[in-house]
Amino acid sequence: MVDILHRVGVESPSPEKVYDAITTVEGLAGWWTDDTKGKAEVGGVLEFRFPAGGFDMEVLEQRPSERVTWKVVDGPEEWIGTTIDWQLRQDGDHTIVLFEHQGWEEPVEFMHHCSTKWATFLMSLKSLLETGTGAPAPDDQRISNWH
Amino acid sequence: MVDILHRVGVESPSPEKVYDAITTVEGLAGWWTDDTKGKAEVGGVLEFRFPAGGFDMEVLEQRPSERVTWKVVDGPEEWIGTTIDWQLRQDGDHTIVLFEHQGWEEPVEFMHHCSTKWATFLMSLKSLLETGTGAPAPDDQRISNWH
Repeated sequence: MVDILHRVGVESPSPEKVYDAITTVEGLAGWWTDDTKGKAEVGGVLEFRFPAGGFDMEVLEQRPSERVTWKVVDGPEEWIGTTIDWQLRQDGDHTIVLFEHQGWEEPVEFMHHCSTKWATFLMSLKSLLETGTGAPAPDDQRISNWH
Repeated sequence: MVDILHRVGVESPSPEKVYDAITTVEGLAGWWTDDTKGKAEVGGVLEFRFPAGGFDMEVLEQRPSERVTWKVVDGPEEWIGTTIDWQLRQDGDHTIVLFEHQGWEEPVEFMHHCSTKWATFLMSLKSLLETGTGAPAPDDQRISNWH
């Protein structure tokens, strides 16, 4: 099993704004994909859609301003059964976001792509909170021929 | 042992320009850090310096337009002994860059940071080759309180 790891810091006086951006449909639509639907509550399923496909995530855990965990229940074969884990904490004037996409079976080329793509979406989250403007799909940053 | 994985595609008619950007001091200075020195040849050592420190890399392998491997011989403790591996191949109008920073002992928070930071530098490499302008240190994209 192999994991994608990332860390960004959002200039914010507390983790609440970051927490809201990953636990509300409106927040998620502001930085990941504008086609986000579903229930952002424990046991609910979030549906993220992109021009080329999408992911359904069951919310496993939501601890306000501290931790969010999703399990992938539908999407590309390599993603199904993996988990997305978010840990938040305040460090001075930054909210630190520790991100892990855990449990890939093999370090396939698609995992390399998703690692870079997650980084650009985390920068989109940072931008949304710091400037009011994110870059969610379909206007996301292109990284390759796989978009 | 855990690895950082990334994949970007550079719009380019052949891998040669990407290969040059990772195997010449001038190329490396255009997207990673403008304070790059050393010998970009097998057995040589490249010295990358940033405002907060730097890395020395021994060049282990250079296969034109295909593969480059460096070993970290000086720098932060967590980096020493790790390897940086670049694989290039052409896919239509894109040069695909498969990047791995291999052999971290533990998935520490600093590794999360470096994973995201590598993604932004790979986007800087892509930008350099597609537009003529990269974002090397000290003008690199800030991702957190750790820069």
